[in-house]
Amino acid sequence: MILTAAREAFAERGYDGASIRLIATGAGVDPALVHHYFGTKDQLFLAAMRAPLDPAEILPEVFGGDRDQVGERLVRTLLRVWDSPAGEAAAALFRSAVSNETMAKMLREFIVNRILRRAAKDLDLDPAEAPLRTNLVATQIAGVVMIRYILKVEPLASAPAETLIAAIGPNIQRYITGDLGLSAPKD
Amino acid sequence: MILTAAREAFAERGYDGASIRLIATGAGVDPALVHHYFGTKDQLFLAAMRAPLDPAEILPEVFGGDRDQVGERLVRTLLRVWDSPAGEAAAALFRSAVSNETMAKMLREFIVNRILRRAAKDLDLDPAEAPLRTNLVATQIAGVVMIRYILKVEPLASAPAETLIAAIGPNIQRYITGDLGLSAPKD
Repeated sequence: MILTAAREAFAERGYDGASIRLIATGAGVDPALVHHYFGTKDQLFLAAMRAPLDPAEILPEVFGGDRDQVGERLVRTLLRVWDSPAGEAAAALFRSAVSNETMAKMLREFIVNRILRRAAKDLDLDPAEAPLRTNLVATQIAGVVMIRYILKVEPLASAPAETLIAAIGPNIQRYITGDLGLSAPKD
Repeated sequence: MILTAAREAFAERGYDGASIRLIATGAGVDPALVHHYFGTKDQLFLAAMRAPLDPAEILPEVFGGDRDQVGERLVRTLLRVWDSPAGEAAAALFRSAVSNETMAKMLREFIVNRILRRAAKDLDLDPAEAPLRTNLVATQIAGVVMIRYILKVEPLASAPAETLIAAIGPNIQRYITGDLGLSAPKD
């Protein structure tokens, strides 16, 4: 099946390393057929991930605009998406990535390639610091997902969006633009 | 089996609501047998969770001492435990909670009853704010676990402990003692 071959290829070789040709070979079909059914490599990747939406469609609203408010915008958008019907599919994706090694590699590739690199570029982060800063943002995002949507710990699971935006936004903002002691001397 | 009955009881009724007597009845054995094999309710709960260690043994070092450094101590202890051999068992626990509803309820009960309530008490937090503050800390902790130990996203997965303590400690500190805008007027 094309999607199975795509998952294996993306997990093994990453987004850049997996070609439509390779995936077609793995599925025993012609590359033209893959294009016909799934469109571009980008679209195939999203289908293989069972992604409920394309981050490329919502990230501009987060990373555009005032750089000092990006933490709050990120939390606001996160909650809007996960509180919407797409949230259920996103939770299924999160669960499958935790229990399945292939899906874990896919999700890692998805996060790094589709979200964090774009964030680093759009936010014009110092290239030496960008990978760790964006990883730190990912920890806070993943943790909100885990506690609010997977484990449903109260009161956070039922807290109003505005409460969480005010509480969490500044912490994410610090990871993006704050002093993290990254350039402190090592000895 | 006693552990299966214990998981169901703790998940359904919570730690406080599940008695040894109830668990024994569910397993079709005498309560004395449960005590004989598993000791106290506390010990049975930890066994049912497959917990690699008892948080009660390590939390005093985190929540004792200077209150303004508790964020850093929490990250330090988190990394020490998860980077140790106990980390593998802890990761298995995390995975089972994400994929299994009974284990999710158990883990939620474990986090709230064994860790967060104790944290709120030991840190002498304002009771009106303590639940949300400790939930917020849990988001940051769960996210570090997810990104560093489950998805293994780089560079965070290989980052030195001291780098992460300096980067994440202050964010956790803000959740515990900082201004989160919680008492802001609602209109």
